[in-house]
This record gives sequence, C-alpha cells and structure tokens, in this order.
Amino acid sequence: MIQVAIVGASGYSGEDLVRLLLSHPQAELAAVTSRQYAGQTVAQVFPKFAHHPRAKTLRFSEPKAELLAKQAQIVFLALPHGVAAEFAVPLLQLGCQVIDLSADFRVKSAAVYKDFYAHDHPAPELLAQAVYGLPEVYREQIRQASLIASPGCYPTSILLPTLPLLKAGLIQPASIIADSLSGVSGAGRKAELDYLFVECNESVRPYGIPKHRHLSEIEQELSIAAGTQITIQFTPHLIPVNRGILTTLYLTPTDNNASSLVSRLTACYQAAYANEPFVRLLEGKALPDTKNVVGTNVIEIAWRHDPRTGRLIVMSAEDNLVKGAGGQAVQSMNLMCGFPETAGLI
Amino acid sequence: MIQVAIVGASGYSGEDLVRLLLSHPQAELAAVTSRQYAGQTVAQVFPKFAHHPRAKTLRFSEPKAELLAKQAQIVFLALPHGVAAEFAVPLLQLGCQVIDLSADFRVKSAAVYKDFYAHDHPAPELLAQAVYGLPEVYREQIRQASLIASPGCYPTSILLPTLPLLKAGLIQPASIIADSLSGVSGAGRKAELDYLFVECNESVRPYGIPKHRHLSEIEQELSIAAGTQITIQFTPHLIPVNRGILTTLYLTPTDNNASSLVSRLTACYQAAYANEPFVRLLEGKALPDTKNVVGTNVIEIAWRHDPRTGRLIVMSAEDNLVKGAGGQAVQSMNLMCGFPETAGLI
Amino acid sequence: MIQVAIVGASGYSGEDLVRLLLSHPQAELAAVTSRQYAGQTVAQVFPKFAHHPRAKTLRFSEPKAELLAKQAQIVFLALPHGVAAEFAVPLLQLGCQVIDLSADFRVKSAAVYKDFYAHDHPAPELLAQAVYGLPEVYREQIRQASLIASPGCYPTSILLPTLPLLKAGLIQPASIIADSLSGVSGAGRKAELDYLFVECNESVRPYGIPKHRHLSEIEQELSIAAGTQITIQFTPHLIPVNRGILTTLYLTPTDNNASSLVSRLTACYQAAYANEPFVRLLEGKALPDTKNVVGTNVIEIAWRHDPRTGRLIVMSAEDNLVKGAGGQAVQSMNLMCGFPETAGLI
Amino acid sequence: MIQVAIVGASGYSGEDLVRLLLSHPQAELAAVTSRQYAGQTVAQVFPKFAHHPRAKTLRFSEPKAELLAKQAQIVFLALPHGVAAEFAVPLLQLGCQVIDLSADFRVKSAAVYKDFYAHDHPAPELLAQAVYGLPEVYREQIRQASLIASPGCYPTSILLPTLPLLKAGLIQPASIIADSLSGVSGAGRKAELDYLFVECNESVRPYGIPKHRHLSEIEQELSIAAGTQITIQFTPHLIPVNRGILTTLYLTPTDNNASSLVSRLTACYQAAYANEPFVRLLEGKALPDTKNVVGTNVIEIAWRHDPRTGRLIVMSAEDNLVKGAGGQAVQSMNLMCGFPETAGLI
Repeated sequence: MIQVAIVGASGYSGEDLVRLLLSHPQAELAAVTSRQYAGQTVAQVFPKFAHHPRAKTLRFSEPKAELLAKQAQIVFLALPHGVAAEFAVPLLQLGCQVIDLSADFRVKSAAVYKDFYAHDHPAPELLAQAVYGLPEVYREQIRQASLIASPGCYPTSILLPTLPLLKAGLIQPASIIADSLSGVSGAGRKAELDYLFVECNESVRPYGIPKHRHLSEIEQELSIAAGTQITIQFTPHLIPVNRGILTTLYLTPTDNNASSLVSRLTACYQAAYANEPFVRLLEGKALPDTKNVVGTNVIEIAWRHDPRTGRLIVMSAEDNLVKGAGGQAVQSMNLMCGFPETAGLI
Repeated sequence: MIQVAIVGASGYSGEDLVRLLLSHPQAELAAVTSRQYAGQTVAQVFPKFAHHPRAKTLRFSEPKAELLAKQAQIVFLALPHGVAAEFAVPLLQLGCQVIDLSADFRVKSAAVYKDFYAHDHPAPELLAQAVYGLPEVYREQIRQASLIASPGCYPTSILLPTLPLLKAGLIQPASIIADSLSGVSGAGRKAELDYLFVECNESVRPYGIPKHRHLSEIEQELSIAAGTQITIQFTPHLIPVNRGILTTLYLTPTDNNASSLVSRLTACYQAAYANEPFVRLLEGKALPDTKNVVGTNVIEIAWRHDPRTGRLIVMSAEDNLVKGAGGQAVQSMNLMCGFPETAGLI
Repeated sequence: MIQVAIVGASGYSGEDLVRLLLSHPQAELAAVTSRQYAGQTVAQVFPKFAHHPRAKTLRFSEPKAELLAKQAQIVFLALPHGVAAEFAVPLLQLGCQVIDLSADFRVKSAAVYKDFYAHDHPAPELLAQAVYGLPEVYREQIRQASLIASPGCYPTSILLPTLPLLKAGLIQPASIIADSLSGVSGAGRKAELDYLFVECNESVRPYGIPKHRHLSEIEQELSIAAGTQITIQFTPHLIPVNRGILTTLYLTPTDNNASSLVSRLTACYQAAYANEPFVRLLEGKALPDTKNVVGTNVIEIAWRHDPRTGRLIVMSAEDNLVKGAGGQAVQSMNLMCGFPETAGLI
Repeated sequence: MIQVAIVGASGYSGEDLVRLLLSHPQAELAAVTSRQYAGQTVAQVFPKFAHHPRAKTLRFSEPKAELLAKQAQIVFLALPHGVAAEFAVPLLQLGCQVIDLSADFRVKSAAVYKDFYAHDHPAPELLAQAVYGLPEVYREQIRQASLIASPGCYPTSILLPTLPLLKAGLIQPASIIADSLSGVSGAGRKAELDYLFVECNESVRPYGIPKHRHLSEIEQELSIAAGTQITIQFTPHLIPVNRGILTTLYLTPTDNNASSLVSRLTACYQAAYANEPFVRLLEGKALPDTKNVVGTNVIEIAWRHDPRTGRLIVMSAEDNLVKGAGGQAVQSMNLMCGFPETAGLI
C-alpha cells in the first residue's frame, strides 16, 4: 500500500478523487486538506463516502507541506491554478511525487501560461520536468516522473481522438474545429448565480469563446504531434447534466479518397488504442453517449466520413471528473507506482 | 375572428399549436382532430389547457377534409411527412388555406424529397405553389399564399443566422458547419426506449449523422440565397431539456479583414433583422441561451470573430416547438389573414 | 390602463411578476426597482422579456417611495420579509395600494410573526387592515383592500384543498399532515452552494422541519376556517424541477362512512370551487401533475378515500411562482381594480 | 469464485445487477439471459460495461433452466412477477440457490398474493421456504436459504426505518403514513408514453394510490414485527431523477413524553443498526438526500420529533436499484456464500 494525500479536496474534482482513492486496492488515503473543512472527518464533509471505514477516521487538515511529506509519498493537488504551483515546489523538495490536477504545469512555456492565465508562472523552473499526464501518449515518461501535470477535461476529450489522426497525417492541421458540451460540475463548486439549478436546468448555452484557457495545452500537444504549430477552433457549451463531456470534432482529411478513408481511420485508431484499457472505440452504428462513461475512466470515440462535404466527424464522450480529472490522475499514479494501470479504476 | 383547425393535434407540435391558438385574439379553434382521441375534449386530453373555456367544449374529431373545410378557413397540419400531403390536397381543393408543419412541401424538388424521405412525393403538383413559411425571408409571398410549408426546427435555427451573411457575400458558401443541440420534444411524442426519461436524463449524444433529412430544406434555402449550390455540415445532438435548440455555426469569411469584420456582420444583421419582432440580436457580451427563448417565438442570434483562426462563430437559440414549429406557423397565419404579425405571439 | 410598479423585481418572484404584468391587457408596468440593476433596462436584465416593446424602454430604478407613488397606483412588493413592511408604510401614506408578496402582513398577530420570523414586526399598526390575498376565500375583502398580503406558495397549495373540508366539518382538525415537494425556484435567486445545479439535480431532500415559517399563516387561516386553533404537520422537500409544488395531504374524516365519503367531498369541492377560474377539480382517474399547471395560475386538486385505513388523501399541484406568488398577486390586483379576474392570467 | 447467473438481465434492475456482479471479487458472472438480446455480448447490449473484460466475452442466452443449473450455483431472477416463480421451480429442483428480485415469493400467503397481484400464485408450495431477503432483519435465515425473496424498493425504504420502532413499542401501529418519492427507473425500462423524458422532466406526480402492490409485503413484515395486523397509508410519487427513493414517515409515538422521545429513538436505532454496514444513521442536523446514496447499497435514516404536533417524522433515502434491488440481492448472496457481507458493495 502506498500512502497518498489530496491537497484541496473540497471541490468537485477533489471529491471525486477522494471517492477513487478510498476504493483503491493499493493506495491508502493518508491525508486530505481543506482550509474550510479542517478538523472535520471525510464522512462529515462528504456523507456519501461515510460507509467507507477510512472516511470515519480521516480528518481534513490545514495544508502544510512538511506534514504532508511525512504522511504521503504521492500528493495530488486539486487546487486553483497559481496556488497549485506554490504547493508543488516544497513538496517536490521534500521528496514527494506530485500529481497536479490544475493547469499550472501543463504548458511548457511560461510565456504561453502568462498569455492564457494572465499572471506570471509561479514556478517556471519546474516546467521542464513536468510530464503531461496523458497515459495513452506519455506512458513511459509518466512511469519515471516526479511531477505530473494531469490534463484538463476538455483537452482530454479533444486530444485523444485527434492525436492519432494528426500523427498519421490523415487530417489537415488547420482544419480542426472542436465543439464541446460539458456538465455543470465542470464549473466547479462555486456559489455563483450562473450555476444555480434554476439557471442551468432547461438551459443550454455557449460560453468563454473564442479563447478558452484550455486552448493553451490543447494546441501545445496537437502541435507536438503534428510537428507544426496548430491553432484550433474550440467552443465550450454548458448543458444541464452533472457530469460528462461530449466533443464533436470537424476535420478535413488530407487525402479525400472517400473509398478508403473510414477504413484508414479505423486502422489508425486500432493501432493507437486497441490495447488501451480506457479507450473504447465504437463500432457499427454506435455513437458516443455520456451516460455510458459517467462514473468510469473510459473515453468513447466514434468517427464518420461525410461523403457530401468530404469532412470527417469524430466524436468523443468522457466523464469530466474521471477521465477528465481524478481518474486520469489515478491512472498516472498507477503507472508511477508500478501498479496495474487499471487498479482502482475498473 | 377567423376559424382555424388543427389536423393531428396529439403530438408535441400539435399540442403547442393548440396552446397558441387557444390564446390567439383573432382566431378561434374550430376543430382539432386525432384518431386516437376522437370524442374527447381538449381539456380531457390536455389537462394543462383545461382552464381555457374553449378547451372544455371543443372535442377531438376524426380527420375528415370535407367537414374541416366547413368548419375552418385555415387548417394546420401537424402530421407525419407523407400523410400531411394527402390531407393538403382535398383541403386546398375545398378552398381552405393550409399551413403544413410537416416536411412535405418544404422542398421544391420531388426528386430531392425522395432522396431524403425515401418515398415518392404524394402530391408533387402542389410543390410549385407552396411557400416556405419563414416570414423573415418570404413575408410577401406568405401574405398571398394558400399553402405554407412551415420550416423545420433545425432549419429555422440555421437559416436565420446564415442567410443574411450569404446574401451579403460575407461568408464562403462551402465553409458552413452547423452543430445543433435539441431538446427531447424534438423527437416527438413516441413510445420508444431511446426517449425514456432514464435514457435521456444525464445523457448527451449525437445522432442521425451525417445526412439528416432537414438538410434538404436547409441546403435548398441556402443555395437560393447564395445563388449557388451549397452543401453544409450538420450534426444534431440530443440534450436533456424538454424544449430548445442551440445551434453553433462555424463559418469562414470571404474577406478576412479582422479589423472591420465584426462591424460588417453587425451591420448585416441590423439591416436584415433590426425591425423583426421575433429576431433578437444580442449585443455586448451576451450569448444565446435557450432558457431565454423557451415558450416564445423569439430566436436569439450572436456572433463573434476568432482572430486566432480567422473563423466566424455564430450562435442561435430558439424554442423548437414555437419559432421552430407552431409559433412560426401562427406567424404565417397572421400574415395570411392581415392580422398584426405578433398577434397571439407576444 | 392602470399604472403599476414592482419593488424588488430581480428575484424569481419579481421576475415572474414582470412577465405577467408586461402582458397584462389593462395594466402598464410604470416602474421596476432594484438596487443591483438600477439604470439598466428590463430587456438588459431579463433578456427573455426583450421582445416586449416596454422591456426595451423601462429602466430599473432605485426604490424610492415618493417617486413610486407618482408613477403608480398599485405597487407590488417582491422583497424579503422585514424589508417589505418598511416600504409599505410610506406607499400607503402616499395613497398607493400595496400588494405585498412577502410574509410581512400575512399573519394577524405581531407576536406570532416574531415567533416565526425572529424579529419584531416593523409595522404592526398595519396588520389589522391587511387582507390575506387568497381570492377564493377573501374575494370581497380584496376588492376593497388597500393592502394585500399575498399568500405564500406552500400555504396556497395547502389551504385551497383543506379549507372547504374544514369549513364543512368533514375532517378532524388535529389530523392534518401536509407533505410538500417544491421546485428549486422556491429557494429564491441566491448564490448558495445548496442550490447549485450539481447539488440539486439527481437529488431529493427534506428540509426545514419541523417548524417552517409558512406554518404561521397556514395555521392562522385553517384555524379561522375551523373556528378552533389548529396545528398541522408540514414537511417541505426540495426536488429537481424549476417550478411547481405538489402537496399530498393526509386527513382523517370526522364521519368515516365510506359509502358516501367521496361523494360528500366531491360535493364540498364543487360547491366551493366549481365556478373558480383557477381551481381545477380533477375528475375520474386523473391526479395532479405539476407539468399541467406550470406557467399558469391554476391549482389542481384531486381527492381519494382509502377504505383500508379510513383516511382521506388530497393532492394539489400549482406553480409556486404563479398561483403561489405573482399570478395570485395579479388576481388580487384584478379584483382591486374591477378588471375581469382572469385578465392577463389566461 | 462462485459462478452466478442472471435471468432477465435487460431491465434496469438486471442491468444494475450486471454492474455489481462484474465487479464482485468473489463471484463470476457465468450467464445472463434475455430473449430479446440472445446472442449479443454484454458489451454490445450495455456499452457502459464494455471496459470489463468479462463483458466482451459473455453473451446473452435464451433462459433455459437446465443449462443455467450447469453454469451457475446461484441464479438471480430479474423477471416480472408471475414469470419469476415459474423459473424458480426447476432451478431449485436442479440444485441452484435462487435470489428472486420479483415480488413472487415476498408474501407468505398465496391469498394475499392473489389479492394484490390479481392472479393465482404460480408456485405456492415454495412460499414456506422462501426467506425475505432483508439482511438487517433476517440475516441468519438468509445464510441458510435456498430461495431468497429480495425485497422491493419502496418496502426497503419503509421497513428499515420502521421495524425497530415497532419492535420496541415506540410507535402506534395504526398511525403509520409513508410518503415516498421515486426516481423514474423504478418504473422499469418500458416503452410507455408516461415515462418519456418530456413527460417526466419538470413534473412531479403521485400515482397508484391508495392500494399499491408493495403494501402486501410492507404490511406483512410490519405485522410480524409488531405482533399484530398492521395497515399503513402509502403514497408513491414519481420525481424527475434517474435513481433514488426518499421516504418520509409520519408516526405517532405510544408515549408522548417529549423530553426523552428523541433520545429513545436514537437509542433504538443505534441498538438496531450501529453495526450495520449499509445503514447510515444521520446525526446532528443532517437529513437524508438521495444524492448521498445513489450508486451505493446504503440507506440513510434520520428522525425528528415535532413538539407542536407530538408526531415523529422519520426519513430515509436509498438507491432504488441498489439497496432497493440488486445491491440488497448481492448482500444476500454474500451471506449465503459465507463471503464478507460487504464484498463487491463498498
């Protein structure tokens, strides 16, 4: 059993990470921190976990790096950007491995970070050593990493369907349009009028266009895969579900030979993901549906060619709080610790 | 007061048309038909309308053209495609004006109809006289028409934001991508597993790609506006709301002079719609939200230019059962009868 | 046309009152106030009303009694309790008629008010002149009133089904149990974690037991009807809908002669409500359903006798924001002004 | 590892049982049957389970008792009442242990069964040997049983909070009123208009009053506990959530000594359930909320005394598909097999 801790466990991502780690067969939740809930047990703060014996004894504490470093080998950061980096520095110095769910270490360039997040990077010296925690792409690097930048929810839903096509040269890099629909938990546990039940229920709306912060990491990873600088179109929408992201991608193929295009895509995806435990390639007439992935670490992907327009339509579905946050972080932890990659996730 | 009738008033479109016509200040609902509910009052079939005095006395009848022609001057058809055309023929011969909410008379070519609807057109001789009932485009023709093909819900949400830009030559005709999100009432009142509460709630999914039937009328109207044959990309999705369509359009401008592009779009939309009672052009930071149009005949439109990609993003929101169905049909009726266009709709 | 004003029009009740008054055929919305939105138009604050011509010109103002008294003959108060009474005093002195949607004037005893609302009544001298605005019970008094205490949402859903039975002596006064389910708009437009979409969706929960504030007015009116002091059981629950209250009442009949009990109840309800435009007595197998009343001023009532237990089960459904708030207030206004009682409400 | 089978695995209860058994550490899902899906894999029918390796190889088969008896030691029946008993007979003869999720063996009297289910019991000779599968009450009998009648969802939500109070003589047997709210999955996966998304969303409604079938087993178990024949009041309601039952109970205490009543209830519940892994007794101000139990086998219980009326209010929350169906059945299986009672359930 490895000892793990979560810093900032009171938001939706942190809460779902608590759920996953309470049930993990090879990890023990040694500490959870929250300024707001310090002193209370996990069972008191999250009654839904109270049937786990550990939830009755584990108490939230103030976040203190030195104490955490004594309690845990791996520390998850579920904090706002900016704040996360400040915690990562001492934890790494004290010998912990850090898995950061914020955006702080996802972008390799401090200048890009400042452009998208509107403040200086708090720890630019760590950017070089951080590994982008997308196991399907960086599995070997994750195994050796001490600092994981766990990907965002939208980026995961866009990158996994797109990267293999880009690497194989099947799509035109400038053509990528990503239209994404997210459940309300993606906005975080914030007391704001916009996220009240009455404002979200029976409502659908786009937001944050045209320059969402997640574009920085999406475009970085796409550009690495393509070997050329890529800029994409991305529109997020808020839909009235608790969890789930559905992304629809519009792509222009490089070689519009319709007769074999779908089979080339199928072969490309099979080569990339046939053995991936958490990527479900949909066959036949099936299309992604968030209800088939909610609560799991799975991303569903399906693809179609439209012979009328020549475009490709690729769709993905994931749980924004699992494959898009805590589940993917646990997947990285499994790799870092030499556990089976699916431990605690299936 | 004009006497009106609804044939096939038991589906969601028919039901909402009943709602609108019960409250219309210049129309009296003289007859409603439904094989299933014949003999029952409107109040019995739709308890929600029982407080309208007319709902307690008006009984559903079997649909018989000769009787309807005696009862009503204007007959609305809320029937499945194929069936609607068969009713339209005798009603027109008997002197009624017909407003058809089905797809039967929306496409001007019987061949295109067969291509998309998979059966021969039942009354191709009427196609030439049918007027596409989009008042913002065909207002004068609607005033003179005896047969209205009231537009579909998706087409309305796509055509109104797109047509002015195409007519003004502001966008490249081949670039149009429409990503649409529809409430479940769009699937009709059908006892199918796919539309059960448990299958739709906490679920989002694309469907019907890549060749949805509504493409036939969308592309016809776009092509007329552009003066050239247009093919578009269109992906509908099902989201867990009762009512509402949100459409996000991705468009490539013809002249990518970013410095004035947004102001040219604003001027274009102002010229087209500033005086339209049911088109709401959003200013400032506001973006469309279905909750702001549900229950009304309004379509909201907003537009943005993405300087990073050069693309335009145009978004619309409407109620699929009002501006996308019955409300638009009543708007046409108001024009045909010389009533104020907003009568019964504001 | 009468000139009307709304003080505190930015909450859910105020917003729905704006909706109703914008469409009222005999009232003109002369002023709306909100400290938060002062200076903005109704169309800016509530885009959903922007298609009403009046919404584009009418601006929110600071709430000032002297100005309001010049602008409007009738002033609606949609303010928190305590605050409402402070506005009512000068408005009445300046000659306005006041319809208060808060709890401030519903209870006739300042002591009971303090017991339930935990502060001294701000204007106890007005309690005697206030009329409880339940038109089905106090129609004649409302016609003559200058100060209306418009009933709460839960009270309306409980009182209308219960009062006729109590007056007729059909039920035992001590037996009343009211189990109520309310949509989330009942909690008001407040930025609190408890009312976030994610906390309410896929959730059902009781709250506020056992001494909800609304009990003060419920028990007052029941006691008046019974001629004896009545204490009832009341449990409110929060359910994931925007609007609607469903109340299930458990009652013990005074005379358990099962053979005629249902017919006596039917006769009692018919005598009380057969001519009421907003009370729908359900016949046959129909049971109340909030979806049949949402958006309307109607309350549905059904009743059953359980021969196994001897108890009566009476159920009601209403829209908490219409018959439970703004609609009922407009119904009172119609009576005060001599308009048809259903004006602007059907 | 024990081999298990599910007969009738295509409904919501069967589907959730598949979920639980795929993850069970000591049971292997050897067979699942469904006439409708025979020949397809579990992964094809339920894409949400496709990441479980077993789901890709296990195929639905026709339900044949002889084959099932060779494949599995324990067979779960997730079939409609009437049909379940017909399968149980040969399976028991062939030496299987049977856990029946239908109502067929819950009632000990064939006459009561006929009264509530309107047909003769198909296998009355088995009623005597069936054990009512409520582990908190019949744990020892379940360990020895060959035929388990797993309780219904409403009965579980009512019995667990009520039985200890009845046994301790704390409440008056004739006073029990149970007001229950159920998610739509409780209606089963049936293609009926009443359960369409649009008919259930933004709707709340009572149904099936006053004589719901579940009363037969509820009153049987209450009567056994009280040692006297008990008849209760029960009103189910349908609310727009997928899963969850919230029950509010109104009870009259036998000894209305308010000063110690709550502490006596607390002591009674502690004595009954303090060591139960799936009963969560809520302390302090917490009240049950279905969102805290959904997906788990936990039932939450809270209790209050109303000094104004003298009544007790007891509330429970459970997942109708887990503690109310498949989870409770697995809990019985764990007992029958000598596994830890929480195996596969925490």
